[in-house]
Amino acid sequence: MPRVVIIGGGFGGLQCAKKLRNETVDVVLVDRQNYHLFTPLLYQVASCLLNPSEIAAPLRKVFRGARNIRVRLGEVASIDYDTKEVHFVDGAALSYDYVVLAAGSRANFFGNDALAARALSLKSLGKALELRNHVLECLERAAASSDAGERARLLTFTIVGGGPAGVEYAGALAELVRLVIPAEYPEIDPAVVRIVLLEGDNRLLPTFAPRLSRYAQRELERRGVEVHTDHELRSDDEIEGATFVWTAGVRPSELAGDGCIDVDEHLRVPGRSGAYAIGDLAAVRDRKGRELPMTSPPAMQEGRHVARHILATVADKRVRPFRYRDKGSLATIGRTAAVSQVGRLQFTGLLGWVAWLVVHLYYLIGFENRFQVMLRWSWFYVRDDRPVRVIVQARRRGDGP
Amino acid sequence: MPRVVIIGGGFGGLQCAKKLRNETVDVVLVDRQNYHLFTPLLYQVASCLLNPSEIAAPLRKVFRGARNIRVRLGEVASIDYDTKEVHFVDGAALSYDYVVLAAGSRANFFGNDALAARALSLKSLGKALELRNHVLECLERAAASSDAGERARLLTFTIVGGGPAGVEYAGALAELVRLVIPAEYPEIDPAVVRIVLLEGDNRLLPTFAPRLSRYAQRELERRGVEVHTDHELRSDDEIEGATFVWTAGVRPSELAGDGCIDVDEHLRVPGRSGAYAIGDLAAVRDRKGRELPMTSPPAMQEGRHVARHILATVADKRVRPFRYRDKGSLATIGRTAAVSQVGRLQFTGLLGWVAWLVVHLYYLIGFENRFQVMLRWSWFYVRDDRPVRVIVQARRRGDGP
Repeated sequence: MPRVVIIGGGFGGLQCAKKLRNETVDVVLVDRQNYHLFTPLLYQVASCLLNPSEIAAPLRKVFRGARNIRVRLGEVASIDYDTKEVHFVDGAALSYDYVVLAAGSRANFFGNDALAARALSLKSLGKALELRNHVLECLERAAASSDAGERARLLTFTIVGGGPAGVEYAGALAELVRLVIPAEYPEIDPAVVRIVLLEGDNRLLPTFAPRLSRYAQRELERRGVEVHTDHELRSDDEIEGATFVWTAGVRPSELAGDGCIDVDEHLRVPGRSGAYAIGDLAAVRDRKGRELPMTSPPAMQEGRHVARHILATVADKRVRPFRYRDKGSLATIGRTAAVSQVGRLQFTGLLGWVAWLVVHLYYLIGFENRFQVMLRWSWFYVRDDRPVRVIVQARRRGDGP
Repeated sequence: MPRVVIIGGGFGGLQCAKKLRNETVDVVLVDRQNYHLFTPLLYQVASCLLNPSEIAAPLRKVFRGARNIRVRLGEVASIDYDTKEVHFVDGAALSYDYVVLAAGSRANFFGNDALAARALSLKSLGKALELRNHVLECLERAAASSDAGERARLLTFTIVGGGPAGVEYAGALAELVRLVIPAEYPEIDPAVVRIVLLEGDNRLLPTFAPRLSRYAQRELERRGVEVHTDHELRSDDEIEGATFVWTAGVRPSELAGDGCIDVDEHLRVPGRSGAYAIGDLAAVRDRKGRELPMTSPPAMQEGRHVARHILATVADKRVRPFRYRDKGSLATIGRTAAVSQVGRLQFTGLLGWVAWLVVHLYYLIGFENRFQVMLRWSWFYVRDDRPVRVIVQARRRGDGP
């Protein structure tokens, strides 16, 4: 049977592998992590609401019982497109008939190393936990400090980037602070806390309708977040406070080389036989020639298309070219406040929030996670709590097993 | 109001603070971590069954609403017993009228640095997560390896110490392996996996009745664990495999100096006015002059006694000397298999296991955790699953906030 190597178990790679399950191809799904991560809820891990395992589904568990799918934990060093081999950092190699590049993206600091060194981010589960640890430590240190200036520094949180990630994290952080400080930190004056959200565009959520942007800004401000639009960040000196969260830019994985990979109408990489590129590292355009956003819905649709195209090719059949179906966008600001747009429909407030809830629960991979997250959300709704407030370092041993 | 500084939010310190809640003393509870850890279930975090937050209750949350209790995250550098001041590593100082030393214990490698460097352990939440990461990585690397010798090395797990921690972790690891490998690692032959448990004494669980020790060994062997008693470990060269878990010895915290702190009948430190020592770092004896074990029940009873004694002293009253009430011991080997002894009563099998379940749920701090753990245990009973199988590093930033 022909072998399909999928590099990346994110939204695109996972959908591609699922579509190939129990078909007449051998699939090897490669990832640096042993889990699929539901990244849209990472900010809830960073803000003490969810446990890591609730948004991380072990890849081997997802494909339990799928006889034609193997999972390989490892880091890809390079791909030899002539000999059709994937080379791993650990020296191993894997030959393929079809390779699907689905390695996603990483944070983009536009070459500013000083920014990169200081920034916390939401680009991985480890990073989200680092951010959680950091914020909780800031609260503890502020509580223990008798120096007003130092307390103000520790209690100023700057978030750069007013897209969905920045907006959602800013809203969640404001709620965390509002729930936890008055009840549990008598040493801290809540008025000293500042959450600053910086956006380079002239409005938050620039990919949403202007009405929704205005709503998001108003709701964040109502929750005490200082929003600065049209803000051009020149150096990290401008960033106030001990916490600086970067959500302002992503760039494709190292695998893609310098920029996104151009693909044809079937998401094939021109000139490289048997190779496909999907998701954040692929430059896929809609019918108007605009590049699709680096979000999960295009990645998922692309993954399924590539699976269909591979199966058709193996069976010597044809499929129609890829066409993206825009199912809308969502972002939440806080409890009962979210924005969503589906085609020309736009929702805000409770209705937007319910849409957000339903979509996120529906897409959470694995029944158990969904069930747990639902329980936890209900609990937090009733109790107004942020239960996962532990500062804990989990290392991997330097030398490995 | 007189100020009581409690150093350590473990079982002893927590009970002491709880007993002082809303009394006529000011309490500062100091810990290096921001949570109380339910250490008897740490092995379930290490074996992918529970989430960290399910056995870690944030101290500030535990004492929410207690007006006379403050929590201070920090590491104690030294105590000046003459000026009655606690000095922190960060330079701050805190004066006290009463100080309760409840800083617990750490792993004891008896001066063998080579052992210490190689060992994984269950002595903290971070260590348990490190162990979980390590074991999951061993499985992944073994699955990816084509070298039979390397696979055998990666799939050999050695646990040193046949007390409750070693027995419980060995049983849980055997269950993890049995549930996960056949279903999700087609690359691995389950027969290659070895779990080796080494104990220096002539039986497992030396503090339990011999009949219970025999039962524990039989049950572990039935689950595929190789048990070696009378095993004297001379050097780390003897340890087979890529994983070496140390549960064989603990020693008191640095705060205690060279050994456990001797105390009088009210757990006061002789010659040091206003100072008490409880839990793992105190040498408390029963009526027959035997030192109490370094486990949670003595620590909890000691914490409550010290609180009572402080309140009596403040009110110029008296209390009876401390007397330990042995409520029995428990250890679990796996589902429906545990040993428990209460006075002269001894239980094994399902009955022992139910006793174990009830006691652990009862003592889990905080209703929410208890509820979640119960749900998860029920789920795992029905589904035979180990859901928390994510390899994730969570760092604290080197420079801190």
